[in-house]
Amino acid sequence: MTLDEKKWFLESAEEAGTVFGLKVTAKLHGECSPYQSIEVYDTLKFGRLLVIDGYIMLAQRDNFLYHEMLVHPALFTHAGPRRVIIIGGGDCGSLTEALKHEGVEQVTQIEIDERVTRVSERYFPELTAGIADPRARLRFTDGIAWMRAAPAASADVIIVDSTDPIGPAKGLFESAFYAQCHRVLAPGGMLAHQSESPFLHLELIRAMRLAMREAGFHAVATLDFPQPVYPSGWWSATLARKGANLDGFRETAAERRAFETRYYSPATHRAALALPPFVLEALEGS
Amino acid sequence: MTLDEKKWFLESAEEAGTVFGLKVTAKLHGECSPYQSIEVYDTLKFGRLLVIDGYIMLAQRDNFLYHEMLVHPALFTHAGPRRVIIIGGGDCGSLTEALKHEGVEQVTQIEIDERVTRVSERYFPELTAGIADPRARLRFTDGIAWMRAAPAASADVIIVDSTDPIGPAKGLFESAFYAQCHRVLAPGGMLAHQSESPFLHLELIRAMRLAMREAGFHAVATLDFPQPVYPSGWWSATLARKGANLDGFRETAAERRAFETRYYSPATHRAALALPPFVLEALEGS
Repeated sequence: MTLDEKKWFLESAEEAGTVFGLKVTAKLHGECSPYQSIEVYDTLKFGRLLVIDGYIMLAQRDNFLYHEMLVHPALFTHAGPRRVIIIGGGDCGSLTEALKHEGVEQVTQIEIDERVTRVSERYFPELTAGIADPRARLRFTDGIAWMRAAPAASADVIIVDSTDPIGPAKGLFESAFYAQCHRVLAPGGMLAHQSESPFLHLELIRAMRLAMREAGFHAVATLDFPQPVYPSGWWSATLARKGANLDGFRETAAERRAFETRYYSPATHRAALALPPFVLEALEGS
Repeated sequence: MTLDEKKWFLESAEEAGTVFGLKVTAKLHGECSPYQSIEVYDTLKFGRLLVIDGYIMLAQRDNFLYHEMLVHPALFTHAGPRRVIIIGGGDCGSLTEALKHEGVEQVTQIEIDERVTRVSERYFPELTAGIADPRARLRFTDGIAWMRAAPAASADVIIVDSTDPIGPAKGLFESAFYAQCHRVLAPGGMLAHQSESPFLHLELIRAMRLAMREAGFHAVATLDFPQPVYPSGWWSATLARKGANLDGFRETAAERRAFETRYYSPATHRAALALPPFVLEALEGS
């Protein structure tokens, strides 16, 4: 087939030898912030599309998969999360999901690029709805430096909603950063970090898990979920827990949650933890 | 980005407004059979690629997901499958998986286009390995007509490994065909049909389930799994059972299976049946 490239937003995943594209109807926004290029497109079938440095960050139609599965498993595993930190996550989708948990008293988000949040407020208001919540605190600064300065045992859950492990986000995948997260978490605290594709990036997931253990975390678990706009259409998050195991979660609370979810449920939470044999084999010992 | 289209095999999914492509290194084969065009490419990262009428059928790297999840849940749900029928499936990946079950005495495959099988023998020998098994019977004829002529209660499992519900495969998604399957199955018999994407084709899955019930099946269940080379990267199979329910499967036998699987396990079998809320809602009453 021949593509009219003006009508498609295309992203190639070099490491996979694949290309994925969405048919676009308009370019709504384009700017270069001090950190990166930020673009917004309208697409024919996936709603609006957020693109950073040429990589698809999210589309309106399917981002619920990623945001629900990055946030809810961690919060329903912790016994009673009150203080949540989000590193990255400038589109505020994770922030808004975390604030749906009634016991949460404060969500502090540290995003390096304020422009991502401002652009998201304009084009993705459903994702940034949480900003208006009095429990939300936004800080626009470097997440690694911020975590180093944060008080010990001051958080229950840390969610790392980062871009890929290249450029500024690279340090977020390393054990020095995870060690700071471990220090900042109270006992029983949970770390959740998006961990790329279980089909394409098993070496990275393995390295992340080893780095988390090296940083002092007691238990580590990876869960998977579909994500059509990301390479391979299949994505993961890796959880780590301080001083407690990761067997089970608050199933009754999850069942009786007072908010709507489209992908997350106690059943899909359990299912996401059931990794296939080839993934288990690649992660063995990590 | 700009694509050199000679270096990529591209497939657009009109209904999704998406395009997916694989970087190709060579075109190995191209022909027009009496039924369709058949092409084989070598790709940079996904091994060889089989394309029919311009649509990706399978790649060497990821077809294990589809074949394992179409075949093993059905065979491990049936109490003791001996006689298996495969409709379509010319690449023989499903045939070869089904023959791994030691209790299976005969697998009869009815593929309309012998050329698909012959091309697969040449380029995908790992998929066609089962042809050499004395329990395998290949018939190259129309699956709908063949099923109408098959004796009642003569099969334990019917696997419909079809192309999309357009063109010649359309009749395979209709209740008249499912009624013939129901007649040909013995009591307790299982039907398994690939049922497209849970993200893109929920209306079709719903219609398939209703058609299966209308055809007399007692219970219906849909399961999902990742499939990177198909639209949305997320695919499904729908199971139906004659005169028995679909609660549970032979977990001990699945655990002790004497063959290797890369995606299927008792844990992923259970997980695949845990559909997310938005899918359950769309399928409600079907």
